[in-house]
Amino acid sequence: MTHDDLLPAVPDIADAALAARLQAALDNKTKPLGALGRLEALALRLGTILGTESPALEAPQMLVCAADHGLAARGVSAYPSDVTWQMVENFLAGGAAVSVLARQHGLALTVADCGVRRDFQPRPGLVQRRIAAGTADASAGPAMSAAQCAQAIANGREIVRALPGNALLLGEMGIGNSSAAALLLARLADIDIDRCTGAGTGLDADGLARKRAVLREVLALHAGATAPLDALAALGGFEIATLVGAVLQAAEERRVIVLDGFIASAAVLVAQALRPHVAQRCVAAHVSAEPGHALLLERLQLEPLLNLGLRLGEGSGGALAWPLLESACRIVREMASFESAGVSRKDA
Amino acid sequence: MTHDDLLPAVPDIADAALAARLQAALDNKTKPLGALGRLEALALRLGTILGTESPALEAPQMLVCAADHGLAARGVSAYPSDVTWQMVENFLAGGAAVSVLARQHGLALTVADCGVRRDFQPRPGLVQRRIAAGTADASAGPAMSAAQCAQAIANGREIVRALPGNALLLGEMGIGNSSAAALLLARLADIDIDRCTGAGTGLDADGLARKRAVLREVLALHAGATAPLDALAALGGFEIATLVGAVLQAAEERRVIVLDGFIASAAVLVAQALRPHVAQRCVAAHVSAEPGHALLLERLQLEPLLNLGLRLGEGSGGALAWPLLESACRIVREMASFESAGVSRKDA
Repeated sequence: MTHDDLLPAVPDIADAALAARLQAALDNKTKPLGALGRLEALALRLGTILGTESPALEAPQMLVCAADHGLAARGVSAYPSDVTWQMVENFLAGGAAVSVLARQHGLALTVADCGVRRDFQPRPGLVQRRIAAGTADASAGPAMSAAQCAQAIANGREIVRALPGNALLLGEMGIGNSSAAALLLARLADIDIDRCTGAGTGLDADGLARKRAVLREVLALHAGATAPLDALAALGGFEIATLVGAVLQAAEERRVIVLDGFIASAAVLVAQALRPHVAQRCVAAHVSAEPGHALLLERLQLEPLLNLGLRLGEGSGGALAWPLLESACRIVREMASFESAGVSRKDA
Repeated sequence: MTHDDLLPAVPDIADAALAARLQAALDNKTKPLGALGRLEALALRLGTILGTESPALEAPQMLVCAADHGLAARGVSAYPSDVTWQMVENFLAGGAAVSVLARQHGLALTVADCGVRRDFQPRPGLVQRRIAAGTADASAGPAMSAAQCAQAIANGREIVRALPGNALLLGEMGIGNSSAAALLLARLADIDIDRCTGAGTGLDADGLARKRAVLREVLALHAGATAPLDALAALGGFEIATLVGAVLQAAEERRVIVLDGFIASAAVLVAQALRPHVAQRCVAAHVSAEPGHALLLERLQLEPLLNLGLRLGEGSGGALAWPLLESACRIVREMASFESAGVSRKDA
């Protein structure tokens, strides 16, 4: 499979004429100019992504990709790898944060096994696209082969192709995956690994020092893996690679892509490195307490909607921000204009 | 009417035992400790206000109080006073931002005419508690008499008493009312008036300089009005005084009180000055682009949930933040515990 078979075209969707019409519509709503602040910028972005002056979000899909990480054996996480499959069960049973929040907001929840170490019984809401029982240990060799990486990307594209709607919310689960995200950020954005590395699910100071030492070693081992797909295969995870495919497919289809925390955003960073107009389709739901996330969003030039000290992942931050996207669309569609409401203008 | 007839008792509701039980419940949910960040603090606060380990928000009420300001004649606003009644019509017709957002989130919307210059035809959703056709010009004398102020507070209490549910979202409309809010903040928190004063609905630099000069003059004229009720009568507005009553009543009934922007928050500042446990019942929805708002929230020791550069008022920020309050309650009520979900703990 060639590079271009694997990756869809993601053209520039900037449209100055549409943006001007959207801005004029916003400026004519019954409120002081710009008084809805960042909600107005969000409305403009959503209208641009969906290519309409009357943006409406339909059948939003929360896709949670899960996989295990060989690197977890090096003690980079506060939790054991078994938590990955246990949390997949929890997502499907409706008891996890993302389950609760998706239910609250009417987000359809799909959980994808992209490479969890334990098999699952098939059931509604679970998509089985398992590449292997976890990645290999990236401190000993590449986390995955090029073929595995390509397969995971193709899986992500296929999963999204089968989902309805025009908005995709990204979620993930995988003990050890804040390490993979830190490695990808360090490599693709050329930022010192220590700045990209945080406590994840809750390492103490010693644990964090150990994680940093391991990640520095991994980066050195894969010094040659600088191209985005090479970096993804060497340093990434199956859930991240599947999300890269999901993001690329959603971008090709001009769906609204809602980032969550550090790991989901790392998948977008890879997709953006492959196709430089991906970020046009993205909304950053929040900035995480995990320190690399702010650096990553800055690199993507995305401003987060929420800053609530979240550091859970799963898609929980995307779900929490979702009503703001809905509000932005409704403001455009439902608010009265000065003329229609008979309201006087400034200095009238 | 004596001071104590007018103002209800608002006792301390801090409950260390309940807080410990809520914290233990949060800590036992299937997520790393504290990983939901400020959503967890919010859940703790909502549980404390409602006095339960299983907080549930019921029949939330958006109360938008509207009135005109004599001081508007001094050119302190970018918009003419007629916009007040025009926007009341817009609220009731469903075309204003707060109408759209209240509809989105199932918030019952009540608009109270507390002293708009033009009469309204009675209709559903409108409560008529008009003290007068706007306040007097505060640069010439007190904005209202002590009796008018007491009546507005009593009206606010009565309005809330008649509303169902356990949550009150505050909203307001009144051309000139960012001046009243700035004056109340300067007086009650002893902050220089220039720092409390912003562009409101959109004054230019000259307009802002003129507004500051007028407000300095007003403060000097009412130098003796230092007690909260005296300051409210001298400097406030009928919608603010009605909101003070609404806040006090909601506080007495242990409803969750959701602040909006600068003006609604100024009403809470007055209520808190009268009854020092009011803020325990409050949630700050957002911090406005109006510069005095951050100072006011700091004074109330409330941390805002959103920071989106909003400066519209009406209750729009409260409505935008509302789903976060719902989420906080659902996290407590619906998330699985480590035991119930069979998920391993840290370092297990």
